Amino acid sequence: MKKFNVGIIGVGRIGKVHAKSIIYHLPNVTVKGVTDVNLDGVKEWADSLGIEKVYADHSEMLADKDIDAVLVCSSTDTHAKISIESARAGKHVFCEKPVDAQVAKIREVLEVIEETGVKFQVGFNRRFDHNFARIKEQANSGVLGDPHIIKITSRDPQAPPISYVKVSGGMFFDMTIHDFDMARFMADSEVVSVYASGKSLVNPEIGEAGDVDTAAVVLNFANGAVALIDNSREAAYGYDQRVEYFGSKGSCEARNDTKTNTVLRTKDSVSMDKPLYFFLERYMESFTTEVGLFFEAIEKDTEPVVGGKDGLESVRVAMAATKSVKEGRLVMMDEIE
Amino acid sequence: MKKFNVGIIGVGRIGKVHAKSIIYHLPNVTVKGVTDVNLDGVKEWADSLGIEKVYADHSEMLADKDIDAVLVCSSTDTHAKISIESARAGKHVFCEKPVDAQVAKIREVLEVIEETGVKFQVGFNRRFDHNFARIKEQANSGVLGDPHIIKITSRDPQAPPISYVKVSGGMFFDMTIHDFDMARFMADSEVVSVYASGKSLVNPEIGEAGDVDTAAVVLNFANGAVALIDNSREAAYGYDQRVEYFGSKGSCEARNDTKTNTVLRTKDSVSMDKPLYFFLERYMESFTTEVGLFFEAIEKDTEPVVGGKDGLESVRVAMAATKSVKEGRLVMMDEIE
Amino acid sequence: MKKFNVGIIGVGRIGKVHAKSIIYHLPNVTVKGVTDVNLDGVKEWADSLGIEKVYADHSEMLADKDIDAVLVCSSTDTHAKISIESARAGKHVFCEKPVDAQVAKIREVLEVIEETGVKFQVGFNRRFDHNFARIKEQANSGVLGDPHIIKITSRDPQAPPISYVKVSGGMFFDMTIHDFDMARFMADSEVVSVYASGKSLVNPEIGEAGDVDTAAVVLNFANGAVALIDNSREAAYGYDQRVEYFGSKGSCEARNDTKTNTVLRTKDSVSMDKPLYFFLERYMESFTTEVGLFFEAIEKDTEPVVGGKDGLESVRVAMAATKSVKEGRLVMMDEIE
Amino acid sequence: MKKFNVGIIGVGRIGKVHAKSIIYHLPNVTVKGVTDVNLDGVKEWADSLGIEKVYADHSEMLADKDIDAVLVCSSTDTHAKISIESARAGKHVFCEKPVDAQVAKIREVLEVIEETGVKFQVGFNRRFDHNFARIKEQANSGVLGDPHIIKITSRDPQAPPISYVKVSGGMFFDMTIHDFDMARFMADSEVVSVYASGKSLVNPEIGEAGDVDTAAVVLNFANGAVALIDNSREAAYGYDQRVEYFGSKGSCEARNDTKTNTVLRTKDSVSMDKPLYFFLERYMESFTTEVGLFFEAIEKDTEPVVGGKDGLESVRVAMAATKSVKEGRLVMMDEIE
Repeated sequence: MKKFNVGIIGVGRIGKVHAKSIIYHLPNVTVKGVTDVNLDGVKEWADSLGIEKVYADHSEMLADKDIDAVLVCSSTDTHAKISIESARAGKHVFCEKPVDAQVAKIREVLEVIEETGVKFQVGFNRRFDHNFARIKEQANSGVLGDPHIIKITSRDPQAPPISYVKVSGGMFFDMTIHDFDMARFMADSEVVSVYASGKSLVNPEIGEAGDVDTAAVVLNFANGAVALIDNSREAAYGYDQRVEYFGSKGSCEARNDTKTNTVLRTKDSVSMDKPLYFFLERYMESFTTEVGLFFEAIEKDTEPVVGGKDGLESVRVAMAATKSVKEGRLVMMDEIE
Repeated sequence: MKKFNVGIIGVGRIGKVHAKSIIYHLPNVTVKGVTDVNLDGVKEWADSLGIEKVYADHSEMLADKDIDAVLVCSSTDTHAKISIESARAGKHVFCEKPVDAQVAKIREVLEVIEETGVKFQVGFNRRFDHNFARIKEQANSGVLGDPHIIKITSRDPQAPPISYVKVSGGMFFDMTIHDFDMARFMADSEVVSVYASGKSLVNPEIGEAGDVDTAAVVLNFANGAVALIDNSREAAYGYDQRVEYFGSKGSCEARNDTKTNTVLRTKDSVSMDKPLYFFLERYMESFTTEVGLFFEAIEKDTEPVVGGKDGLESVRVAMAATKSVKEGRLVMMDEIE
Repeated sequence: MKKFNVGIIGVGRIGKVHAKSIIYHLPNVTVKGVTDVNLDGVKEWADSLGIEKVYADHSEMLADKDIDAVLVCSSTDTHAKISIESARAGKHVFCEKPVDAQVAKIREVLEVIEETGVKFQVGFNRRFDHNFARIKEQANSGVLGDPHIIKITSRDPQAPPISYVKVSGGMFFDMTIHDFDMARFMADSEVVSVYASGKSLVNPEIGEAGDVDTAAVVLNFANGAVALIDNSREAAYGYDQRVEYFGSKGSCEARNDTKTNTVLRTKDSVSMDKPLYFFLERYMESFTTEVGLFFEAIEKDTEPVVGGKDGLESVRVAMAATKSVKEGRLVMMDEIE
Repeated sequence: MKKFNVGIIGVGRIGKVHAKSIIYHLPNVTVKGVTDVNLDGVKEWADSLGIEKVYADHSEMLADKDIDAVLVCSSTDTHAKISIESARAGKHVFCEKPVDAQVAKIREVLEVIEETGVKFQVGFNRRFDHNFARIKEQANSGVLGDPHIIKITSRDPQAPPISYVKVSGGMFFDMTIHDFDMARFMADSEVVSVYASGKSLVNPEIGEAGDVDTAAVVLNFANGAVALIDNSREAAYGYDQRVEYFGSKGSCEARNDTKTNTVLRTKDSVSMDKPLYFFLERYMESFTTEVGLFFEAIEKDTEPVVGGKDGLESVRVAMAATKSVKEGRLVMMDEIE
């Protein structure tokens, strides 16, 4: 197995998750160094994990000849720029989602990727979740037949603070984008048109900030399949992540994961565990898997499993959904640049 | 408990179901007689159940002073006409769904009902299903909070023959109409706009006949709630009937009923029963409950639990859904007469 | 289908259940009349169901030439005597469990049955429960292989009053006897030895009355299979009735039935229905099935599905279990008369 | 957090599991070195994990002043001897189960532990399984009331080879011993008497080797609780590990864990995942937890969570169960030394 040195750009929540999962679970990958726009406490954290270097900034990291690849975990508005610089520096790029909120910028990234020939993978980790991967595996086996209906329920345990909502780019770009990617992944086809109904039912301030907190989306695919997505920023009972693939020969449905499989029976009720708390608990394994597959693609020189087109299309669908809510109508994908 | 004599007009499948459930489970109601446009074998069947009379036609039944109420179980195109005649004859009317495919005719029925003062109930039996009734009960208790998202999965075990499809009035009128009523029942509000995506994925002949066999529908309600309905004329694994009410404080979800609660574990799999075969098996109890409540409304002189407005609105939503598929756009309910 | 007239001797709770289930569900059987040691209110009740006759006593019923068969639903101490008189009067006999608490008396009944040639069935209705029947069906199909372990959980929702406990004959005869029959039915073999651990943990007064309210029983079968039964007179969450057949090729397990299949999710818990309340709710269908099969055995002149030997052996096992608790040791079945 | 150096004596399957889980999950514990009676390939394996030393034998390890504690993962017959030597060398001892098959030897170990004052923990990892720990947590909270019935199902996916069976010490010492510990843990009381029924139904050669492969065990506890354990060396569908605690106020039951929570529905069946394959998959987390708690006990100078008495009593119960099968009778614990 080939050995790789990786640098992580941005060590907020998700950057730290990747660092740990690489260190603990990917023996052929070394986290050589990290950097961040705010370096407070980074040295201590890096030391505690045995990470050798803390770079002053990402340029210094990109100048390091030992670095084979980078994980772009910085703030969304810097993804495109840093991805481009990294590719030009000859580093393979794993970029957190979304690549950018503007189609033109994403296309620019993809062109540079094409030009430089580095590998580029987008962080749609849910494709690698054990439950959803099992659905896909069943679909690929043929046992489910052709895809007819894809159903995705995706609800967060708690609405984010308004301050976050204001810079999030909107629920469709921040949260539903995972579901758009999942729907494309399951339907195995491209979206033709989008109808989205978006409301602010959880917290009126979210509506006042111009965003939605509750949504129902229908995606019509080129192959005839249709996807239904329902979202809420706040499910009282926790993080609700379910997917169903309904095909001509059968259905495969993923229910929520729970911490235990115990059943409590008392005079009041028969109850079971609530879903795992939030995305770190629910999708932890998938973060390891996706990064492992990124390095496998580098080693074997194959296409990364979630490519630039996936990064682009999910953003275009988010744009169409946003437009659909604003204009109260079905939006054709060819209306989107 | 007051005693009632009922007559059943039309003893096809559903008429026979009602006859049996009244005879076996409603001790205060006597099926005094039945009639049908085709009387072959009706006398023998009536005798076997101890039903006293077989009327030559519904006019003869309506002329019978002993009859307190009728169940209109004839073909859909005759529902409105017979309901009107029955009301004018002073009989209370339980009318199978849909009341009619034309709004004008339904309004005419409702006017006659108003004028004559008889009770009028529409056969949306699923409201009385033990699972769905439990969801409603939880919603009414306040434990779920305000309705945000209603999810309805409704899939038949097998597509009907093309000959049936051609006279069915279309999937939205024949099958989804139950889901439209269920969504209104759960959301406890009126539909404001409808987006429906309809495809012919199960059987191309259904598409050629101008109908759809697969659909995804979004209903926007006046109170902000949104409903997502997915339909298929053919689920390989059987009759799939699930509903979820997601509210501000929690969710209540009804899963499928099965014949047994056994789990079979072998080296090949861990498996459970498939859903109950079709609507007769799945909803049997609800047929008894709805008719029982109809007679209770007569006895207590209260509003029937599923009134004329429910019959009207579900048809209007079906019209909007049909229009939405044809025109590929969101349809506002005020576009529908 | 042949028509039968049946008489019911004893119209307490279980006699009334049988009357209703025959009237509603067995069209070829007429409940011609009933009797009871206490006739208060019996006439009114019989009238309400259209039952023609109320006999002064069972002798009068047995003298009625029109009666083909009787259901012996009187108090346990009269089962043997009335069964014998009924058989001698040429009536087929369906006898509630247990036939008697004394082996000699049961043997006497079986001799008279043999001699008179009437059909004799014992009321072990649980064999006909849809869940347990499905397990047996899977076992018979060979998919489970040879029986190795039979697990039965049988717990009541509430301990009976002490007054009842004192006349019940003991928990093993009153409650566990159903489980003894179930174990024999599942293992398809005879019991060789019994170890029973019995405690009074629910209510000390039950222990003071010489009975137990909590038990763990191991039955060793001639074919090598072993059964584990656990009982409690009081499960806080309701009537818990589960059976598992574990064989060389797989396992089939019946979980509890519930009124609905809904899942309620709130911030406090994810909960489901408690088990159906008690035996009338849980086993209703099985009462109809067992009586239907009794009349089928008469019509086709075949052996009743639960014969006299089943009535005898379950009582012998209950005796062995009682002895095992008293003497604190394994009891061999050949120690029992 | 205090830092510890640990040495692992015996790096077969379980020793390697502990090494990995410490390295990946216990940041304050360093696996300083390992040893084994067979050192083939050990150096390479140790290097791959960054383990500094491979000792020639355990005496060399015990002589190393840097070693704070040892994990005794050698063959069962050496557990007692090595534990004693380790304690005398001043090392804290984590000993895999069972401590020994002879009570006298275990008592000797416990005396030396007492004398030397080192910490001693026995490897009953299942107590720390997330499911079973949840049951215990519910029991401790009082929501379940007093323990009445403990039910344990423990079945392996495949019978071991006869060669293993012959040196295993018998199923009760090798496999059921975990269940004996679990029953004591759940009942929170000591065993008073044991009835065990043991058969050889899976493989007759196991019987010929003097062992059993199928068992039903009843344990009577001092506090009145009763436990039922059922075992099989071979469940066709995989590793079946279930526990139920039934108390005066309710029940808590742990079902099997599965790799995914998907439901596959086809025309043939509705199926779910089989249980996780075997103990390494099923109990992986618990290995980390138990070792973490061992070091916590050292750091805080508290009693280890599974102490020497637990190691002793589970062996005594296994002896009683073995005697019960051989003599076909209930065995009182005071018959065991």
